[in-house]
Amino acid sequence: MSNPEIEAQLAPLRERVQEQGNLVRELKAKGAAELDVKKAVAELKVRKKVLEDKELALTPSVVSFDRAKMEDLLKRRFFYDQSFAIYGGITGQYDFGPMGCALKSNILALWRQFFSLEEQMLEVDCSILTPEPVLKASGHVERFADLMVKDAKTGECFRLDHLIKQALEKLCKAKDATPALQAECEDIIIKLDGLNKQELAAVLAKYNIKSPLTGNDLSEPIEFNLMFATQIGPTGLVKGYLRPETAQGIFVNFKRLLEFNQGKLPFAVAQIGNSFRNEISPRSGLIRVREFTMAEIEHFCDPAHKEHPKFTRVANELMTLYSACNQMDGKSAQQSTIGEAVEKKLVANETLGYYMARIQQFLHAIGIKPECLRFRQHMGNEMAHYACDCWDAEILTSYGWVECVGCADRSAYDLSQHTAATGVRLVAEKRLPEPKTVEISEIVPNKQALGKAFKKDAKSITDALAKLSLDDVKQVETQLTTGGQYKLTLPDGATHELGADSISVKHASKTVHVEEFIPSVVEPSFGIGRIMYSLLEHSFQCRDGDEQRCYFTLPPLVAPLKCSILPLSNNADFQPFTQQLSMALTKAELSHKVDDSSGSIGRRYARTDEIAIPYGITVDFDTLKPPHSVTLRDRNTMKQVRVDMDEVVSVVKDLATARLSWSQVLEDYPAFEQQETTK
Amino acid sequence: MSNPEIEAQLAPLRERVQEQGNLVRELKAKGAAELDVKKAVAELKVRKKVLEDKELALTPSVVSFDRAKMEDLLKRRFFYDQSFAIYGGITGQYDFGPMGCALKSNILALWRQFFSLEEQMLEVDCSILTPEPVLKASGHVERFADLMVKDAKTGECFRLDHLIKQALEKLCKAKDATPALQAECEDIIIKLDGLNKQELAAVLAKYNIKSPLTGNDLSEPIEFNLMFATQIGPTGLVKGYLRPETAQGIFVNFKRLLEFNQGKLPFAVAQIGNSFRNEISPRSGLIRVREFTMAEIEHFCDPAHKEHPKFTRVANELMTLYSACNQMDGKSAQQSTIGEAVEKKLVANETLGYYMARIQQFLHAIGIKPECLRFRQHMGNEMAHYACDCWDAEILTSYGWVECVGCADRSAYDLSQHTAATGVRLVAEKRLPEPKTVEISEIVPNKQALGKAFKKDAKSITDALAKLSLDDVKQVETQLTTGGQYKLTLPDGATHELGADSISVKHASKTVHVEEFIPSVVEPSFGIGRIMYSLLEHSFQCRDGDEQRCYFTLPPLVAPLKCSILPLSNNADFQPFTQQLSMALTKAELSHKVDDSSGSIGRRYARTDEIAIPYGITVDFDTLKPPHSVTLRDRNTMKQVRVDMDEVVSVVKDLATARLSWSQVLEDYPAFEQQETTK
Repeated sequence: MSNPEIEAQLAPLRERVQEQGNLVRELKAKGAAELDVKKAVAELKVRKKVLEDKELALTPSVVSFDRAKMEDLLKRRFFYDQSFAIYGGITGQYDFGPMGCALKSNILALWRQFFSLEEQMLEVDCSILTPEPVLKASGHVERFADLMVKDAKTGECFRLDHLIKQALEKLCKAKDATPALQAECEDIIIKLDGLNKQELAAVLAKYNIKSPLTGNDLSEPIEFNLMFATQIGPTGLVKGYLRPETAQGIFVNFKRLLEFNQGKLPFAVAQIGNSFRNEISPRSGLIRVREFTMAEIEHFCDPAHKEHPKFTRVANELMTLYSACNQMDGKSAQQSTIGEAVEKKLVANETLGYYMARIQQFLHAIGIKPECLRFRQHMGNEMAHYACDCWDAEILTSYGWVECVGCADRSAYDLSQHTAATGVRLVAEKRLPEPKTVEISEIVPNKQALGKAFKKDAKSITDALAKLSLDDVKQVETQLTTGGQYKLTLPDGATHELGADSISVKHASKTVHVEEFIPSVVEPSFGIGRIMYSLLEHSFQCRDGDEQRCYFTLPPLVAPLKCSILPLSNNADFQPFTQQLSMALTKAELSHKVDDSSGSIGRRYARTDEIAIPYGITVDFDTLKPPHSVTLRDRNTMKQVRVDMDEVVSVVKDLATARLSWSQVLEDYPAFEQQETTK
Repeated sequence: MSNPEIEAQLAPLRERVQEQGNLVRELKAKGAAELDVKKAVAELKVRKKVLEDKELALTPSVVSFDRAKMEDLLKRRFFYDQSFAIYGGITGQYDFGPMGCALKSNILALWRQFFSLEEQMLEVDCSILTPEPVLKASGHVERFADLMVKDAKTGECFRLDHLIKQALEKLCKAKDATPALQAECEDIIIKLDGLNKQELAAVLAKYNIKSPLTGNDLSEPIEFNLMFATQIGPTGLVKGYLRPETAQGIFVNFKRLLEFNQGKLPFAVAQIGNSFRNEISPRSGLIRVREFTMAEIEHFCDPAHKEHPKFTRVANELMTLYSACNQMDGKSAQQSTIGEAVEKKLVANETLGYYMARIQQFLHAIGIKPECLRFRQHMGNEMAHYACDCWDAEILTSYGWVECVGCADRSAYDLSQHTAATGVRLVAEKRLPEPKTVEISEIVPNKQALGKAFKKDAKSITDALAKLSLDDVKQVETQLTTGGQYKLTLPDGATHELGADSISVKHASKTVHVEEFIPSVVEPSFGIGRIMYSLLEHSFQCRDGDEQRCYFTLPPLVAPLKCSILPLSNNADFQPFTQQLSMALTKAELSHKVDDSSGSIGRRYARTDEIAIPYGITVDFDTLKPPHSVTLRDRNTMKQVRVDMDEVVSVVKDLATARLSWSQVLEDYPAFEQQETTK
C-alpha cells in the first residue's frame, strides 16, 4: 500500500487536497456563507477524486481486470442477466439464474448465521408496500429525489448533474473552445455537486444545453422522487410506495419488538428483504439497480451506554480506516485496530466499532479480498442529517471504490420522527439509581362542556389534547391565564378555541422509579447485490496460459454448488456409482451437479470451474473394482487425490463447511496424477 | 372419516348434490346454452357448500378450536401482526415478528431441501416489477380482476358479489319479507357465481341496493384489476405491475434455463419470492393478503413423456383425493395410493402424481395433520383455461378447507403465449428416431428494393417478415400469386403493401435430425402464508386443566427457536454455565433463547412454550458440582431428563434435526422429576 515510487507520484495531489481541506476548515471556523462552504467542499471532492483515480490507476490488479470477459461468462452461464430480455428488457432490473440465486442465498444464509444467530438478533419480515405517512415521517417523500430534465418532444429523461457534466465536457473538447470557455466549464463541473436547482437551471440556459440524443429542447429541472408509487386498495385514495429501504419496517414495530425483548435494551433487529429505487437512468450493472436485496440491522441501545459487551473479542481486528480527517488532508487510509480507533474516538463508540469489525470479518469470510476493503468515514457535510458517525465499507472493484455496507450511528432520529408523526411514544424505560419526585402538569378536559360546545369534534379535540407535549401544556397554561382561551390546531388543520370552562391544567407531583428515553440506533446496512458483484470480480480468474479458461475462486462456503460428479465416459457401468454418490450428497445436504454429458473430462472440468464448483468427484475404471474409490479434484489448484467411495461425501462435507482445508486433504490422501485434457 | 351416524345425516345432502351434478352433466352433454350450464353449476356449488359446511359442523376438533385465543397469543408474542399499526394499519398486510419470521424461514429452508436440493432443481430469483407486455401475454392484464362498486359519495369500495349476498340476506331476514321475496333472493344468492356484470347490475337496480355503511348510492359495477400498477423509470411511459405470481419470471427465462440445462428435458425450476394482489377488501387474516410469499416450481417436460423416473418411490403414498367426479356426485373424498390414482387415469400423469405425493410428504413433515389434508381436483368449469388437470392441496382450518398448494398441468399455455407475444421461440428440441426430409418455405426479402421503397421502415418490415409463422408464409405466397402483393401489418399497427419485387417465397427441402416442440409445464405452487397459518392452527394446544397455558406443538424442524436456556434463579453462579451453553449452541448453529429474567421456572417454561420452543435446558444447583449436568425438558410432554453438560448440545442438535426422537432420549437418559410450579 505504501510503495515509495507511487507515493512520490501522489504527493502533489495529496497536497492539493490538503490545501483545499484546510480552506474548508477555515471557512467553517469563521462561519462563512453556506454557499461558499459548499463550493469549497465541492472543489475538495473533485481534488479527492483526482487523487483517488490516480491511486487506482497505479494499482495494477484492477487495471488488468477484464470486465467484459467476466460479464460474458456471467451471462453465458446465467449467473444473472437483464430481466424480461425477450420483451426488450428493462434497465436496472436483473434476474438471478441458478448460479446467481444459489450464491446469493448462500451469502444470506451465512449472513444469518454470522449476525442473527451469533448475536441472537430478532429477525423480522415486514411489508414492502408502505403507506405514504410512514415515508413522510422518515423524510423520504420530501427528500429522496434526484433532479432531472425531460426532452421536450420525446419525454426522455436525463439525470441533470450527469447531463450537464457530459455537455460541458463536450464543449471543452470542441475545436473552437477558447481557453476562457474551457476554464469556465471546468469550474462549473468542479462545483456541480454544490449547485442548487436554480443554479443548475441557469447553467442549462447559459450554455443552451439540449437533449444529447435528439437535440430537442429540455424541460426545466424537475425533482424526481425515487420511490415507486402505487395505490393500496381499490379506492385510489391510499397512496403507497414500494419501500426504499427495509429499516422503516423495523422502526414502526419498535414497541412490539421491545416488548418481545421483555422491555430490555440493548437488542438488535435484523431484516433481509427487497427494496426499490426508481433510478432515473441506471447503469453499472448490479451496482445501481431498481430492485435490490438488503440485509439491515437496527441495534437499539441506551444513548448513554454505547459500549458493547463483546467488543473485546474484536478489539484487535486490524482495519483500513479512511477517516474524514485524512480525506480532508489528502492522506491515504490508515491501518489501525478497531480497539485503538475507538479508544482514540476516531470511531464514535464501541457498538459502532463492534459492527464495523464484524462487517469486515463477514466480508473476509465470504471471499472479499482484504486489500480491497476499506472503511471510509462520512465527512461532516455528506453525513445524513441524523447520523452522528457513519462509516461505509467500500470495496475496490473495476468501478472504483463501491459503497457496499453502510454502518451508521443514527442516534434517536427515526424513533423520534415516528413518535412525532403518530403520537405513539417509541421509547424505552430504565430504572433510576434512586426514585425521584417530579412535578407533572396535565390537561384536564371538561368532557361535558367540550361535548356541548363541539359536538362530534369533541373526541378529536380530547385526543389531540392527550397528545400535547409538556411544552405544549405550558403554553396552554400561559394562554389560558393571559387570554382566557387556547387555540388548538388539530392534525387535519382545523382550529378550535377552548376556554377555561372546557379545559384546565392540573399540577401534581409524583415519585417515579424509571425514566423514559428514546433509544439510539446503530445501523449496519448491507447491499447484497453490490457485495455479490464485488465478490464475483474478486474471485474471477483465468488459467495461466489459457485466457479462455476462466473460473471463479468462490470459497466453498458460498459457492453455488459444492461438488460435481463426473463419470469418466458414458460407459453404462459408471451409472450406479454416479447415482449412489448423488443420493449420498443429497442426503448430506450438499448441492451438486452430475455432468454425464459427452465431452472430455477436461472440458467438463472447465465447465464446472466456470460455475465455481470447488470440488469434483470423478468416477473412473478404478471405481468399478473394489475397494471402490474415486478421484477428488480441487478447482483452485486442479490437484487431485484418490479417496474411497465411502469416505468421499464426508470429506466434501467437511471441505464445504470449512471444517477441513484442501492442504489437509493433500496430506491425508494419495495424490492422483492425470493429464487434464482440454477439449 | 366414515362414522355411520354422521353419514346418515349427510346422506340427503349428498343426494341433492348428486342430483344437481347429474343435471350439469346432462346439460353439458346435450350442449345447452352457456348461461344455463353456468347457473346449474352455481347451484351445484351451493349444494356442495351446504354439504361441506354440514360435514365440518360435525367434525368436533374444528368446532372446538378457539381462534380468538390463538390470535391473541400470536399477537401478544409477535408471531405476526398488522403492518404499520402505529399509523392506523393497512388491511391485508402483515409484518412477521421474530417468531413468525423464523418459522417462515425454517419452512422455506426445509422446502428448499425437500424440493430444490432433492430434485436438483434450478432455483432462480426474478424481478418483482414487471412491465405490462409480459402480463398482457400471460392474461393478467385482461382477466385478473374482480367486480366492485363504489359508494358514490365516500368512494368506499365493495366487492360486488359479497355486497349483493349480504344485502339480499338482510332483505330475507327483514320482518316484512314475503315468502315470495325470500324465495327470489335465495334463488339469486344461489346463482350469484354464474351472473355476469350486466346481470349483477340489474340485481343492484332491482333491489335498490345501497352502500351498507352510509346508505349512499352506489356506482355501476367496475372491473377492478387486482394488480398493483406503477411506472418504471422517470418518463411515466413504461407501465409496470408488481407481479401477481412468481411463475412468469421463470417462463420468460425459459431459453436461458434450457441452455443452462444443456438443452435437456425434463428439468424443474424453482422460485421463492413475494407476489402482490390488490384485494378489494381483504379479510381472514393470513389467508387473504395483499403481499405474500410463494414458492413455485415449473417442471418442464416433453408433452409426450410425462412419466417420472422417481414415481415408483412415491407410488404407495396414500392420499385423500376428492375427484371432480366425486364432487359432482355428492360423494366424499376417497383414499387411494397415488400409484392407483395415476393408473386409473384419475390423476392425469406420473409427473403430476409425483408432485402431489411430494407435496403431501412435505406438508406432513412440517406438521400439518394428515387427517386435515386432502387433494381436490378442479372441476371442468373452474379449471383455468390452460390447465389439463389441476389438484389443490386443501388444508382444513377454522376457515374451512383452504387451498394452500395448487398443482396443475398447465400444458404448453404459458410458453406459447410468450412466444406469440415476443416472436422468441420458447421451444425445446428432441432428436428424431430417424432423420426426415421436410419441405421448408421461407420469405426472401429483396433488401435493396425494400430499402428503396420503404426507407427507414425497411428494417421493421424485414424484422416482421422474419417472424412470420409457416401458415403466414403460405398466405404470403397465395396473396402474391393471386393479387401480386402482400399486406403486412407491423406490431405497431402500421400496414405496408409489399409487391413481388420486394419479397419472394423460396421452397426447399432439408434433412432434419431433431424436431422442435413446446414443452409442457407441471406447476406446484405453494402459498407459504396460508400453509404457515394452517400449521399454527394445527399445532395450537392448551394444557389439560389450564386453558390459560397455551402453546404450539410445532415440530423441532420448523420451530422458530430450537432450545431455551433457563438458569433456575438469578444466582450469579449459574451465569458461566448459561454462557457456556449459549456459545456451544451458537457454534452448533442452533437458534435458542436465554431467559434469565426473574419469574418462577414454571412460568418461564410457559413463556417458552408459547413461542413453541421444543426443548429447554435448565441450569440448577446440581449443575454447579461435577459431573456438571443439566435438565432437558420436552415441550409437548413436559417430561424432563438429566443430561451431562458435555452431551446436551449434541442431543439437542439431533432432536432439532429429527435424527433422534424424544422417546429415545427418555430411554437413554435418567428421568428428572420436578414439580413445574406455575406462577
